[in-house]
Amino acid sequence: MISPLEKLVKSLKKFPGVGEKTAIRYAFFILNANQQEIDELVRNIEIVKRDLKLCSECFHLTEGDLCDICGDTRRDRSRICVVESPLDLLSVEKSGDFRGIYHVLHGVMSPLDGIGPDEIKLNELVRRTNQENVKEVILALNPTVEGEATASFIRDQLRKTGVIISRIAYGIPVGGSLEYADPLTLTRAFEQRTTL
Amino acid sequence: MISPLEKLVKSLKKFPGVGEKTAIRYAFFILNANQQEIDELVRNIEIVKRDLKLCSECFHLTEGDLCDICGDTRRDRSRICVVESPLDLLSVEKSGDFRGIYHVLHGVMSPLDGIGPDEIKLNELVRRTNQENVKEVILALNPTVEGEATASFIRDQLRKTGVIISRIAYGIPVGGSLEYADPLTLTRAFEQRTTL
Repeated sequence: MISPLEKLVKSLKKFPGVGEKTAIRYAFFILNANQQEIDELVRNIEIVKRDLKLCSECFHLTEGDLCDICGDTRRDRSRICVVESPLDLLSVEKSGDFRGIYHVLHGVMSPLDGIGPDEIKLNELVRRTNQENVKEVILALNPTVEGEATASFIRDQLRKTGVIISRIAYGIPVGGSLEYADPLTLTRAFEQRTTL
Repeated sequence: MISPLEKLVKSLKKFPGVGEKTAIRYAFFILNANQQEIDELVRNIEIVKRDLKLCSECFHLTEGDLCDICGDTRRDRSRICVVESPLDLLSVEKSGDFRGIYHVLHGVMSPLDGIGPDEIKLNELVRRTNQENVKEVILALNPTVEGEATASFIRDQLRKTGVIISRIAYGIPVGGSLEYADPLTLTRAFEQRTTL
């Protein structure tokens, strides 16, 4: 292959889930796209890398000191939703129901990978829970082994603060089918059944 | 979503086959990747856009005046393989069997879209076939309606030059199954059967 194209393919192959064939398709798309579109792409990449920082309060992404959510006075500051990543935060925001504020951990504890409470924004969560006028901490971590362990750890850490600690429900996804649900999800769905 | 990230997602959604979710994944990959990797990506994009031109002979991509293939004296210059795009050329090259040279049309005729013989590199093919010491023109166009029509048109145009005009075989892909082959492919496979 032509060397500049080959190098671009190599860069694009680093994207998540992108193999050789997809990278080649993307490279040719870039090659054939009009210059203005590509200038815009490059500019947008550079701005994201240069201008995005972490919110000094909740550690979500922001261009300024505080993120849009922490800066929004209409949000309920007594409820903190704890998520693993900004991407998870955006998923919760998209549902549009939660009107509280967030705390982004930037990971979960994983002792095998050397990630303890100090490697994620956990001390900051404890500090925030103590300082602010917080009534409830809602854990919205992923239902993985590490997510579960981190949730337990947070519960233990926050117990003495007296705030309500809750966790989002596990269960059958809306539109999902019992037939395809894994046994653990079903067990949780039964455990967390609600009376009608 | 945070505005710079949103803009990047919008740019990434223009990539072929990339929807909102994939674009968001890519944007977060870019955000979290180390700066050096992203600098390299941006540089590779810019080099591809700036330095790649079309070979003055076959219209394949090249950094110089002639592409690597046209510049290779070991290639058989009496056989020209006609392809629609540089991507198709790379596919043929990957099989490693063809030792002739190429001609990249950069499209196929499509009267409904206003693409006639003058919009693709067809006159150039006729000129090359007349000028060079060509014995065979092998059409390796895609088996679409437009590809077929373009192949017929080329055959008519080149008939008076006296060179052999051939077309790559249609048939069951190696590793494919008759069960899943479409009727037209099967018809062609029967028409083009070879005696053993």
